Amino acid sequence: MKLATVRAEGGFRTVRVEPDGHVGIGPGDVGELLTRADWRTVTAAATGDLLPIEPARLAPVVPRPGKIVCVGLNYRTHITEMGRDLPEFPTLFAKFPEALIGPNDPLTLPPESDAVDWEAELVVVVGRRVRRADRATAAAAIAGYTILNDVTLRDWQFRTREWLQGKTWEDTTPLGPCLVTPDELAPDAEISCTLDDEVVQKSTIGDLLFDPADLIAYVSTIVTLDPGDLIATGTTGGVGHARKPPRCLRDGRRLVTRIEGIGELVTPVRRAEPDTAS
Amino acid sequence: MKLATVRAEGGFRTVRVEPDGHVGIGPGDVGELLTRADWRTVTAAATGDLLPIEPARLAPVVPRPGKIVCVGLNYRTHITEMGRDLPEFPTLFAKFPEALIGPNDPLTLPPESDAVDWEAELVVVVGRRVRRADRATAAAAIAGYTILNDVTLRDWQFRTREWLQGKTWEDTTPLGPCLVTPDELAPDAEISCTLDDEVVQKSTIGDLLFDPADLIAYVSTIVTLDPGDLIATGTTGGVGHARKPPRCLRDGRRLVTRIEGIGELVTPVRRAEPDTAS
Repeated sequence: MKLATVRAEGGFRTVRVEPDGHVGIGPGDVGELLTRADWRTVTAAATGDLLPIEPARLAPVVPRPGKIVCVGLNYRTHITEMGRDLPEFPTLFAKFPEALIGPNDPLTLPPESDAVDWEAELVVVVGRRVRRADRATAAAAIAGYTILNDVTLRDWQFRTREWLQGKTWEDTTPLGPCLVTPDELAPDAEISCTLDDEVVQKSTIGDLLFDPADLIAYVSTIVTLDPGDLIATGTTGGVGHARKPPRCLRDGRRLVTRIEGIGELVTPVRRAEPDTAS
Repeated sequence: MKLATVRAEGGFRTVRVEPDGHVGIGPGDVGELLTRADWRTVTAAATGDLLPIEPARLAPVVPRPGKIVCVGLNYRTHITEMGRDLPEFPTLFAKFPEALIGPNDPLTLPPESDAVDWEAELVVVVGRRVRRADRATAAAAIAGYTILNDVTLRDWQFRTREWLQGKTWEDTTPLGPCLVTPDELAPDAEISCTLDDEVVQKSTIGDLLFDPADLIAYVSTIVTLDPGDLIATGTTGGVGHARKPPRCLRDGRRLVTRIEGIGELVTPVRRAEPDTAS
């Protein structure tokens, strides 16, 4: 099953996504739906008219997650090609929910940065409260998967030794387009990032060093994970910062972030209007 | 004025703290009260019986802040005594709200760590929504101040190059005991941390490199700050990790974190019961 959050009059609505349209489930967003123990049943049972999907109305699939935990380097091939050893522990950092934008929303380049970069990522969506979960409990706590582009202001990321300020800039992280339940995601699904017609990142999620269950087990040792919490699992090679010369996002580009079996984020990149920073 | 959040039947209540007791303001916590534009008037106008303060009933003054932004090294004297240059930008990292405990709650040492350390900090509480605030707007957005001990699992902090996992451990960060409005905090108020009868940290908030208004201006460049959001302003010298040999918190100790004009956090330290990590 695929679930999405749609912007509606006065708030959000949750829908089930079908190949030719969507079926309404009810008011509220997917994060709220996941707090119900019977969310799978409710989603499967939804009936009604098949409505056309309007891309601009899609919201971040979980618009206000309680926590967004992000993972640093986590693709084996990318780590080893960089000449590094495989890490023993995942590198974790946070992102505040204000960073999120919808899966087809434009990205406005912050006027304070001249180094906005892309990072295509698979996201695990938590479906059940867990603390100190073992691998089996962690796996059972996965509601499903979605896509995020961990758009990063490299100049701000590297101003200090902690990355947060380059990672959590308001309205810069596309999330969505939908949550797919675990049965719909192949273990070696392709993940890619395209800038206009050029593929800039391409890998498979089978190359993840710490897989989704590992990450839920690890993070839940530290803090309780709740329904709707997100873990962004890290990115693969091909980011702009690591290229020679470095590259970054520019006005007028179109950033597409895709994972086979989930869908894609289509992000038009725009410069800020002159008064944005006033 | 001083405001506190008290645990009550079915939720929280906000109170005004007087020298000999407290006066009820209404249901909800201080974070919720701050979303009202008239919170100062409502607080000042509260009347009623003066009730005794029961320390164990005090909750974290803002129990569920939307954001907790923490600052790295920020005391001039401490930075220069460590032989470092004064940084150009504040180092920022995040803490999730699940880390918070009340100002008199016990701290249970996580069984997964053997290096739990103290960090006394002044906290700025945001009282007004701001984005890209200049210094004057930032100063006007300060609702008041409180205290936090940024208790840190050094072993987990340094497992990877990002600090988050050592900083956001569930139920390890005492916050409170109250919010004091800016008029009650002297610019050179003393901040200290005491372990049993030994003073382990002592400085004045006048030694802060980036002051509260600087920090609100800086953080609000990145992300909108909302009422109830917290900025923990960093700690001074004297943490256990920097001592030779290093020291850490042990079962049976009593950690007291104090800022003149605000009050103190009194934190009994306990080891976990054997089944905690099961």
